[in-house]
Parts: sequence; C-alpha cells; structure tokens
Amino acid sequence: MTRLRWGMVGGGPGAFIGGVHRRAAGLTGQYELVAGAFSGDAQRSRDFGQMLGMDPDRSSGSWETLLERELALPEEQRIQGVSIVTPNHMHYPVARAFAQANIAVVCDKPLVHTSEQAADLMRIVAQTGQLFAVTYNYTGYPMVRQARDLVRSGVLGEIRKVQVLYNQGWLTTRLEGQGNPQADWRTDPQRSGIAGAIGDIGSHAENLVATVTGLTLEAICADLTTFVPGRALDDDASLLLRFQGGARGLLAVSQIACGLENDLSLQVFGTRGSLCWQQEHPNHLDLYPLEGPQQRWTRGNPAVSPAAQAASHVPAGHPEGFTEAFGNLYRGVAETLLARQEGRTPDPQIAQFPTLEDGARGVHFIEKTVESARSEHKWTDALWQSPVSPALPNRS
Amino acid sequence: MTRLRWGMVGGGPGAFIGGVHRRAAGLTGQYELVAGAFSGDAQRSRDFGQMLGMDPDRSSGSWETLLERELALPEEQRIQGVSIVTPNHMHYPVARAFAQANIAVVCDKPLVHTSEQAADLMRIVAQTGQLFAVTYNYTGYPMVRQARDLVRSGVLGEIRKVQVLYNQGWLTTRLEGQGNPQADWRTDPQRSGIAGAIGDIGSHAENLVATVTGLTLEAICADLTTFVPGRALDDDASLLLRFQGGARGLLAVSQIACGLENDLSLQVFGTRGSLCWQQEHPNHLDLYPLEGPQQRWTRGNPAVSPAAQAASHVPAGHPEGFTEAFGNLYRGVAETLLARQEGRTPDPQIAQFPTLEDGARGVHFIEKTVESARSEHKWTDALWQSPVSPALPNRS
Amino acid sequence: MTRLRWGMVGGGPGAFIGGVHRRAAGLTGQYELVAGAFSGDAQRSRDFGQMLGMDPDRSSGSWETLLERELALPEEQRIQGVSIVTPNHMHYPVARAFAQANIAVVCDKPLVHTSEQAADLMRIVAQTGQLFAVTYNYTGYPMVRQARDLVRSGVLGEIRKVQVLYNQGWLTTRLEGQGNPQADWRTDPQRSGIAGAIGDIGSHAENLVATVTGLTLEAICADLTTFVPGRALDDDASLLLRFQGGARGLLAVSQIACGLENDLSLQVFGTRGSLCWQQEHPNHLDLYPLEGPQQRWTRGNPAVSPAAQAASHVPAGHPEGFTEAFGNLYRGVAETLLARQEGRTPDPQIAQFPTLEDGARGVHFIEKTVESARSEHKWTDALWQSPVSPALPNRS
Amino acid sequence: MTRLRWGMVGGGPGAFIGGVHRRAAGLTGQYELVAGAFSGDAQRSRDFGQMLGMDPDRSSGSWETLLERELALPEEQRIQGVSIVTPNHMHYPVARAFAQANIAVVCDKPLVHTSEQAADLMRIVAQTGQLFAVTYNYTGYPMVRQARDLVRSGVLGEIRKVQVLYNQGWLTTRLEGQGNPQADWRTDPQRSGIAGAIGDIGSHAENLVATVTGLTLEAICADLTTFVPGRALDDDASLLLRFQGGARGLLAVSQIACGLENDLSLQVFGTRGSLCWQQEHPNHLDLYPLEGPQQRWTRGNPAVSPAAQAASHVPAGHPEGFTEAFGNLYRGVAETLLARQEGRTPDPQIAQFPTLEDGARGVHFIEKTVESARSEHKWTDALWQSPVSPALPNRS
Repeated sequence: MTRLRWGMVGGGPGAFIGGVHRRAAGLTGQYELVAGAFSGDAQRSRDFGQMLGMDPDRSSGSWETLLERELALPEEQRIQGVSIVTPNHMHYPVARAFAQANIAVVCDKPLVHTSEQAADLMRIVAQTGQLFAVTYNYTGYPMVRQARDLVRSGVLGEIRKVQVLYNQGWLTTRLEGQGNPQADWRTDPQRSGIAGAIGDIGSHAENLVATVTGLTLEAICADLTTFVPGRALDDDASLLLRFQGGARGLLAVSQIACGLENDLSLQVFGTRGSLCWQQEHPNHLDLYPLEGPQQRWTRGNPAVSPAAQAASHVPAGHPEGFTEAFGNLYRGVAETLLARQEGRTPDPQIAQFPTLEDGARGVHFIEKTVESARSEHKWTDALWQSPVSPALPNRS
Repeated sequence: MTRLRWGMVGGGPGAFIGGVHRRAAGLTGQYELVAGAFSGDAQRSRDFGQMLGMDPDRSSGSWETLLERELALPEEQRIQGVSIVTPNHMHYPVARAFAQANIAVVCDKPLVHTSEQAADLMRIVAQTGQLFAVTYNYTGYPMVRQARDLVRSGVLGEIRKVQVLYNQGWLTTRLEGQGNPQADWRTDPQRSGIAGAIGDIGSHAENLVATVTGLTLEAICADLTTFVPGRALDDDASLLLRFQGGARGLLAVSQIACGLENDLSLQVFGTRGSLCWQQEHPNHLDLYPLEGPQQRWTRGNPAVSPAAQAASHVPAGHPEGFTEAFGNLYRGVAETLLARQEGRTPDPQIAQFPTLEDGARGVHFIEKTVESARSEHKWTDALWQSPVSPALPNRS
Repeated sequence: MTRLRWGMVGGGPGAFIGGVHRRAAGLTGQYELVAGAFSGDAQRSRDFGQMLGMDPDRSSGSWETLLERELALPEEQRIQGVSIVTPNHMHYPVARAFAQANIAVVCDKPLVHTSEQAADLMRIVAQTGQLFAVTYNYTGYPMVRQARDLVRSGVLGEIRKVQVLYNQGWLTTRLEGQGNPQADWRTDPQRSGIAGAIGDIGSHAENLVATVTGLTLEAICADLTTFVPGRALDDDASLLLRFQGGARGLLAVSQIACGLENDLSLQVFGTRGSLCWQQEHPNHLDLYPLEGPQQRWTRGNPAVSPAAQAASHVPAGHPEGFTEAFGNLYRGVAETLLARQEGRTPDPQIAQFPTLEDGARGVHFIEKTVESARSEHKWTDALWQSPVSPALPNRS
Repeated sequence: MTRLRWGMVGGGPGAFIGGVHRRAAGLTGQYELVAGAFSGDAQRSRDFGQMLGMDPDRSSGSWETLLERELALPEEQRIQGVSIVTPNHMHYPVARAFAQANIAVVCDKPLVHTSEQAADLMRIVAQTGQLFAVTYNYTGYPMVRQARDLVRSGVLGEIRKVQVLYNQGWLTTRLEGQGNPQADWRTDPQRSGIAGAIGDIGSHAENLVATVTGLTLEAICADLTTFVPGRALDDDASLLLRFQGGARGLLAVSQIACGLENDLSLQVFGTRGSLCWQQEHPNHLDLYPLEGPQQRWTRGNPAVSPAAQAASHVPAGHPEGFTEAFGNLYRGVAETLLARQEGRTPDPQIAQFPTLEDGARGVHFIEKTVESARSEHKWTDALWQSPVSPALPNRS
C-alpha cells in the first residue's frame, strides 16, 4: 500500500486533537508521519517526533523551518500534505504558507478567524487546485453519511425543520487558568477568535446541518451568553435559523451543560419522514416515516447507502466510534490524493471530506452569529457566497 | 370515601380530552360525575350521560341550562365543581359563569383567548376564593415533581439554561377538514385562539419550565411558522428565552415533526448539576452532577421526594403513564376541596395542581409569543404580572 | 353504560394487588363494586367497604358470609362476578365456591396450589360454562397483543428460540418478618405454595411466552435457589425449556436482582424475524427482520393490529402503563359478560383475557419446575394436558 | 517510541479478524508488522504483505517457512511476537512452534481444540516464561475493566447471580457454502472444533464472566441446538451455571437470533448492588445500588477506576468502540514486552490481557459444555484446574 508522506503542525505533548489526528490517520494505514513542528521548542518537538518513531531531523521548532526544510527536499521525499492542529489563531498563516507551497492541507476547525482570511485561502487554492480539507469530523460517521443519503434519496420529502443541539459540560466551572491547556486557549480571544462555544462546537453543528440536509442558511437570530464569571467568550449559544426555500431551524450549543459530555444530536423533519441521529450513540439513526413503524438503521446493515457502507470497518453490532469517524475524513483525503497520484478517478463513496468551502462558510457562520447576537434586529442575513468563481467543489 | 359531585362541560361523543378527564378523575375514586353538558344537542348529551351511568335529567344541551339546573338544586345535591373540556373559545364564558356561581372549576388549557379574559377570571376568583385549576397535566407526573423538588433542594445549583422541546407529528399533513374534529378546531382561529402549536403545546412547555425551575420569564424572541399550506395558525414555533436573574432558554414546539408522537423533553442546566426528563419515558429522570456518575431516579424509588412518592400509585418498575399523571391533578383538586369540606389542612404533598395564575400566565405567554413573532425587534418583553393584588396562590 | 355488579375477596387495608384490581376495573367504567370480604375482621371489612363508597351491609368478614348473603339476594341485585385477590392459599376454596354458585370469577395468579385443585375448578367450570379469568396482567399490554399478532401473522417465520427474563430486586434482603405483608406471605409456603419467585413471577413469564408464541412447552430443566438465609422458598430460578416442534427457550426469574425493579423482557427469535418487548418500556416493541432496518412498533400507531389498537386508550406518545394493561383484562371480562347478558357476540378484539386453562397450565408449570429442580435428570416432562374434554376455550 | 517487531499468521485477503488485529495493534503505535504468513499461497501472501508496506521477502506461504526465516535472522531483526489469526484448527501447531521458539504469541480464541493441546502449550510456556495472550477482546473495553474493578472493590457485595447473553443473527440462514469464508470455517468441525456458537461466542461469554466476577465455575447444565438444517455444529446454546461459593448463573448464546447483531450483555447481581453492561453500548455501565438512584458510569468520567481510565483514549462522550477495546489488549501486551525489554516494571493498569490460562480454561469450558449437552445428568462438573504448577499468572 502506497502511503502518503505527511507532516503535522501542532499536536505536541499535552495537546488533545493532534493525537486524535494521528490515531485517525493511523487507522487508515495510508499515512506515514515523517515531519512535524509539534512544539515551539525545537528540542521538545524533536524529542516528540522521535518518540513517534520519526527521523529526528524532520521535527522543527517552527512551522516556517519545517516548511523550508521540506521544500529543500526532493519532491519524492517531501511531505505531500500537512495536518494543522494548532490553536485556531495559527491556522491561517500556516495553512496559507503550505497551500501556497502546493502542499495538501488538512486543517482543524474552525478554519480561520475572519472571512477575509478564508477568502484569501480560497483564492490560493482556486489557483493551485491542491486539496484542502477541514476536519468537521462528525461528518465522517457512517450514519451521518447515511442520514445525508436518506435526505438526498427523498425519503424525508421536503425538509421543513432542523434541530441541532450540541451540549457539553466541560466548561461549567472556570477551568481556564488552572492548568488545562484546552480550556486556556479555547476561552482566549487571541487564540480562539471572536467566539467561544459557537466557534468551537457551533461550527460543527452548522456543518452537520449543511452536510446532511444540503440546505442553504439564509438568516439567523442568535443569543450568545457567557455564564462563567471572568470568561471572555461565549460559553452558550441559542440560534433560530431560516433556510432558503422556507425551512426553519434551531441550533443550540453549550459548554456549561453541567455533567453532559459530548451530546450532539440532529433532528430533521420532512414532509414524508423525519430522522434523528445522536453522536453519543453513533452506530444507528432513527427514521420516522409518515406511516408505519419507526425504523432504526444500523451501521453495517446491508441496507445502508454505499457511502455509509464504505465508511464502516467492522460488522454491525461491533461499535465504531469517534476516532474511526475522524479516520474516515483522512481516508477520503488519502483516496483523493492517491487517485491523483495514480491517475485514476477516486472512489466517490470514499473520497468524502469537508472542504475549504465548508471551512469558509463556517467562519462566515461564526461571524454572523456574533453580529446577530450584538444586534437589536431579529434577523441577520447569513447567506454565504463563495469569494471565488467558479466555486470550489464542496464536500468533494 | 366521600366523593365530590362533579359536572362536565364538553367531552361528548368524538371528543378526546373529555374522556381523559373522566378516566383521570375516575382513577382517584374521589369524583362522582353527576351532571354534564356534553354536547350542544340536548338528546345527544342526555344519551351520553346515560351511557356514563348518570341520571339523564342532569345532562343538558347547553352549559347555561346545566348551570341553571344545578343552582336550582339544594346545595348538598348540587355539583361542587365542573370540568371544562370544550374547545378553547368556550373556556372563558363557561369558566366565568361557574366561577361566579362559586363552583370549583377545572379548566383545560390554554385557559382563555386573551389576557383580559384571564384577568377577569382572576378578579372573580380573588373574590370568591373558590378553587380554579388548569390542566397542565404534565406537571402531574411524579418525576416532574421530583425534578421540581431537586431544583428546589439546590442539587442543581443556580440554573443557567433551560431547554424544552415538544415535537409532535400529527399535523404533518392537512388533517383539518378531513373528519378529524381535533384537527378541525385546533387549527381554527375562531375556536383555538391566536395561536396553533404554540397555544396547544407551547403553553404546556412554558408551564413545565415554570413549574420545574421556578424561573420568571422576562423576554422572548419567537419565530412562528405555518408549514402546511392552507392552514391558518402556526404549526411550528422556536423561541429564545431570557429569565430574570440571567438564565437563558430555548423552547421549541412543532406539530409537523413527521412521525414523532408526543416528544416533550426538558433539560435544565445548573451550576452544580443538570437534569433531563422525557415525557415518553416518564418513569425516570436523569441527573448529571458536576462530578461522579450520572444518576437515574425512578418513580417509586424510596429516594424520591415526598411529593413524587405521593403522586406514585404502583411500585417502581410498574410503569405509570399519561392518564395517571392527569389523575394526580384531579387528586390534588380533590384533596384541596375535601380538606375544605372537612375543615382540615390539605396534605401539601398531594394538594398540587396548576392554578388560575398558571393559566393566566400561559395566556400572556401565547400573546407575547405571537407579538414577538410579528416584531422586527429581537426581544419582546414577556414578564407577567398578576392583575390581582395580593396575587392568587400559585400551584397551591 | 350498564355496569357489572361486582364483589371482591381480599384486598383490604395494606394489601397491594386489591387496589390495583379496583383501579384497573375502575378504568373501564364497566364495574360497580358492590360487595366485599376485604378483611377477616368484619368491622374492618365494613369500614373499608364504606370508605370505598359501598353499602356497609354488603361487606363481610368472611367470604362464606359474603357468598351466603349474595345468594340470598334476588339475582338482579346479586353480584355477577367476584375478584379473588387474597394470598394464594385462599384462591382455591373461594374460587371453587363462587364458581359452583355460577358467579363469574377473576382470580389472581398463580391460580391454586396444586394441579388437582386446578382440575377440580376446570371440571366445575366445564359444567357451568361460567367465565373464569386469571390475571396474568402482562398479557393486557397493547404491545404484548401486538407481539402475539405479529407472531400469528407469520412475520417472524417459524419460532426457534424464546428468551424470557424477569428480574426484581425487592427481596434482596430479608424483608419478611419486618412488617411487609407482601414479603411475609410470598415467602411463606403455607400461603404462597411450593414455590417462591417461580410461582409469583415465573408463572407470569410462562404465561407471557405461551400467549405471545402459542408454543407448547414439552420439557424443562430447572435450577431453583434460595439466596437469602432463612427464607423457605426459592428467590431465584433459571430454566432451560423445550417446546413441541423443536423450539428452545430460556426462562429466568429472580427476586434478589438487587436494585432492579420489575424488569420483565421477552425475546422471540424466528426464522424470518425476531422481536423484543420490555415491560418497563411497554409502549413499544422492536422487530428485527431478516433484512432491512429494525422496526419499532409503538402503541397507538395505526399500523398495529386490531387487538393492539383496541387495547389502547390514549394516542401514541401518551404513555400507558401497568394499571391500564391490567384494566384491559377487566375490559375483556366485561365485554364477554355484557355480551352474554345482551345476547350479542362479544368483540373478539376486546374480549381477551387469560382463562382458567392458562391458570391450570401455570400451576402445572410451577409443579414441574419444582420437580425438575429436585431431579438429577436433566429434562423433566412438562407437557400439560387438559383434565376436561373437550378443552375449555383458552384465552377466549 | 520503540516499536515491537511483529509477525502474523493468517489474516490474508478475505479474512475478517486479521484486519481487526492489524488495526487494533496499529492504534497503539507500538507495533511494526514486519513478517507474515498471510495465505497458504506464497505469491498471494507476498503481494498482501507488500500491500501492507512490508518487505516482500518476509512474507511466506506457510508458517513453518515464516518461523524458519525469522529464526535465521539475528535476534535484533527477528520478530518479537506473532499474532495467530487463522481458523481455530491451526492455532495449536502454530502457537506451539512459536512458543517453543520463545517468541511471544497473541492467539485468537478459542485457543485450541482440546484440553490436551492447551495443557501442552501451558507446559511449554511455563518453561520459557514467554508472553502468551488470547484475544478475548471484550475484556479490553474500559467499562468492562470498570465493571471488574467495581466488583473487586466490593460495591456489589457478594455476588449471587450472573446473567450473560450473547445473541447474533448472522447464521440465521444457511450462509455456509455460499461464498462466506467466515461462515464456512466456523460451521466446519474440522476447522472450528467440537463446537459452533458455544465455541465462537460462548467462550467470549465465559471469559467475560470470569474476568468481571472472578468467580470459579463449578458445574454446568447445557442445551446445545443446531437449528439450521444441514449444519454440523451447534448454532444456539443455553446453559445453567453453578459457581464455587454458591453463586448461580445463566449463559446463553445464539447465532440464529435473526436480525440481532452482536448483542452481548452481562448482568451481575450482588447482595449490595447489581451491574449491567452491554457490548453494543460499551461506553457506559449501569450500577443499581441497594438504595438510592441508579448510577450510570461513563467511560472517561474521572470517577472510573485507574484501569478504566488507562484504557480510555478520547474524552467522555466521544465514543470508543470495538477496535479500540481490541487495541487495549495489544497495548497490554506491548506494555508487558517493552517493560521486560527496558528492564522496568510494567504499568499494572495497562499491562492487562487474557492469558494462556484464560485460553485453556475456555477450551475446558467448551469441552464440558458439549459433554453436558450430551449427558442425561443435569449437572456436569466443570471445575478447571491448571495442568502446570505453580499456575501461570492469569490476566497478568
């Protein structure tokens, strides 16, 4: 199996999401991590790379050095792609530099701090044609793909209402400033951006709705709250949504939902059926048809869609989870890059991942939510339009 | 066991809620239905009463006749209370007349069409001191009382956010005009009032939040939608809520949630714990403390509060349901009336039911929701103030 | 509505199941409790009857007196049926006397202490033709009737295996002798019979299997255990089952399943589908077809069978529970008796209840279980054959 | 990170469990697969190894060649361990040869066909002291370790009853002989051994009970059935169990439970509490204390035991699944081997995996089950005694 030579920026000792990316990519067997700038401290980065079994000379203390060194290598040794798993504020400069160097990018979400930055990235990628993925990882779950395919198949009829709720409790108390690096940067506007909960998990919720329903968001009405004293960013958000064509929605996220873990759920109500999926029980989704008994579709059941089948790795009843869903994005990226390399058409059931366009739209969503929360007017226009023309392919 | 002599207005052949009231009251063993105006057709009403085993002469074709006849009886034969189970538009005149006649009233929800009507009733009842209950029946579930008592006990700390969702699918298609009397009147502004889903089930959601949390609603931001073509009233609503003291909320109801049945759920997030209760699985509630394992409290477990114990009739694991919860309101009413009759203090763990004040506040909530939905401004003031002073006792 | 004049033996102050019978019968609106022998103390029985709103002269301190008095009344005043809700040891003499007097009997389970007693009752009833019901109440749940009808319809194909588990925790500690009358008599061989858990709840499990699957039990292999020191009867039982035609089964009950409430579940595996029903979540059943998604059938869904529809009283999503299921047996009895009285054919979807034959077969099951538990041989023949010919109608 | 040089026997194209082993080991990052005998066809094996990114010269067409070649390598290049993922009949010769060569073995379950073979392996390993693990993978779930630790901590008191059920539906129809290699060899006595379902999944159930409860099985009473015509081995089994000290149990497995997936559940009833865990929802377990509310312990909650914490890789609410549980066994093996290599004490919270003793006891369990099923006597002695002295360490 040909493996992609890969690099990573961020994700050193103490980081959370970097390890998830490595384990997720590792599950595919299609990646070889060969270079990294894991930490701002060169020696720490080097030690960490060595611990991962890498050549120590390919770990750097800065992404600039990493990029410089890689570009100095012959193309057949150079990394083919990079995963950016830093706090948010570093996404833009790093992604920009690697994209300009025509290196494939897998970037954590939310993409960048501003729509201008997102547009800049889109213009670069429109020129290079290089792959750029954004890890809205919940779309990697087989049953999310099944949900999307059920919607596309028309089983639900016309969609009328969408309800997406994402409740976590980990920031119920003032965790920041107490030695939890996650809490520290997520609640820091310098590193996290203009939004807290709505940026961190609200963007996941937006992407899940867009991916499953295909609906275009038109307007929002938001209420953002900071409950924990001394915190600089929102830790709770509730939004009313309006979509093109008349569908309505509800999106609520919280990081002060005391005792809840990672309770993301999606409900879609259509004229002929409804569906419900819950992230904490990801191996099934429930379909409520207009008539007849309710249906529970399970991962691995031969009745699920080809994309849901392709995203499934062990038989039904053998639970898959978060890391495998995350891995499916990496598998989609690998399928796309390897197909290019091998001059073949990628398998469309596998080559699925959120794109730069998803990322850019997510940034716009965050901006509009904050704008709406500050506004006295009920509805804030939230229609996103691609800054490049023709549009980049979405969810390629 | 002394039984209360009782009357009923509405609830004849083909009606839904009237039968529920009769079965619920029947469960208590404390009521004897002796008089009724079940139908506008005198003979039909008479036949129906006879079918129920009543003296045919005490069934009338109009509530006016019923009242007149009862008042002509000696007090020891006259009905002590009446249940009003008509479509909404009849609640006000009937309730007014019986309340003025100093007869106890159990009225279905929503109470009346306008706040002025509600205020009028409150002024009457403030004078007579007679009992007036409004059947927000979900508050009769033992585990709703347990939820309220957990909040009161401080187990949840300070409440920050409330999420109440009530999704039904029965009006997904245009059922009205097709021989379904429920659908007919519920979607008819003349009989249902200014609101559809938000009036019918949104008022339940409002009451559930108020009962469990004790929070005072301050402002709302509403989006009301009518999805089914040709329908005159909203069949879907989403609201942002703000409470006094800073808590926030989310209230969403739908009657076009295709395939869903009666999916009412409540989540309350506090500084020290959260709770979740679901009407379709009413015999337990889940408590999520800040630390340690989650807890599932079950009806009938000796650890639940005295009021939850008192509202429970069979041992844990022997499911109770909707009708029994409804019956608990009737039991609360009976306990109150019988205690008055017997000159004793009612048992406070039993004498629980939503009062006229709950009903009036619910009407105000509906009005403010409609006002907000029509407004361009994000927040509509929704604080309710009692039109009588001193206030009537709430949830006595 | 014509109401049946009814009597009750047992069920006085402190009893559990008597109140359930009264509430269940009350839900139908078809019964008028007019006579009783609630307690062995005549004054206590009288007071209790008065508390229930009965004529004090029709409450007696013994069932013999009760029967004598009733037989002295003209037939149009005399009770038409009696509910026997005493501890088990009283079932036989009371049932025998009332059956001989041609009064309809509703008897709690298990029916009697010995197969000889059961055969005697069957011979009497074969002569009188009078109704005799045994309250295996779990068969009154709408979704149990749906399960039976799904099996009968052939949706499951040929049944291969049945798994019925019934776990309770209430006898985990030595509750008897501590003021709990239920625990006292249930663990007392004089009053409970030769079996503890297997008699009390194992007989429910046996009846549930027979009702839903229609299979004929052929042989059993049982292990009975008494875990709580000092207890005279089994508090735990596990059985292997063999049915005619080759199906196999597993039946396990426990009353020392610490912390569990009333966890009765049934799984049936067929050649084309399986089903699962759980008593603690009685409003749905899950069907697992050989191919395609799983199905959840809910009470009140128009897709369920006529008998399931007929046993349902409020719409889907408005939970029904234990008492309503119990009430459905009383409704079946009333439909049968009233149809006889009115000279019409009873509605077969309503006139459903476990019969004397179910009761007799249950006694045989208990005897064979105890015999098997004491045997060194693996399989004990457990085929039941009716002592009367032609057989009484089963589950009429 | 030092990685273990590893080999694999079996697991080539079309195999199921080999891929699971590779993905599971891959998740740890502690293994490098360097040699294999994936297929009996040398070229196929070579191609498969190459596809996995291995040196083609280290893939062989037979395990004998593989072993010979490895032994010819200097020790620092030679594989340190091997995973045996062939059909059952190959476990014994392969495991024997590698164990004798002092190479660590990870062998799939059930271990071998006979207790004599198991004893032989035990004697070899008792001499070499080399690691030998058997992949009873369900014990790798964090919440299974939590269950075991709750039992050990005494929270449940003394254990009275154990109920383990494992229902699958994949062999409901005659899948064998239809191009499904799994079905082919699992139903073939030559390759699968004397047992079908009881060998394949019954052995998992036995191991789960032993791991969680620590109880010693004393006697069994089994019923084995072959439902599908033409099948040679059992596809369904039900067993009564007796443990030393008086606890009782129930173990049932089926592979004809139509439509069920991989429904393994464990219930343990103690004098002070009970627990329930379900493999299809593996991220939590429910604890039912004698008093107070039920508790749901979730993976990742800081309240779980150190071993459960150590086996968890992403935060609570981010589901982990089957592959990660399997990976935890490989992590335990790696921790043990690497600690030896590094001359340190392994971390006891990590170095956990089922051992050769578990494997041998499992073979004995299968033999005794088949013996019991064929016996007319109710109870078959099933006490297992180690053939080596001192006993090998169990679950080291």
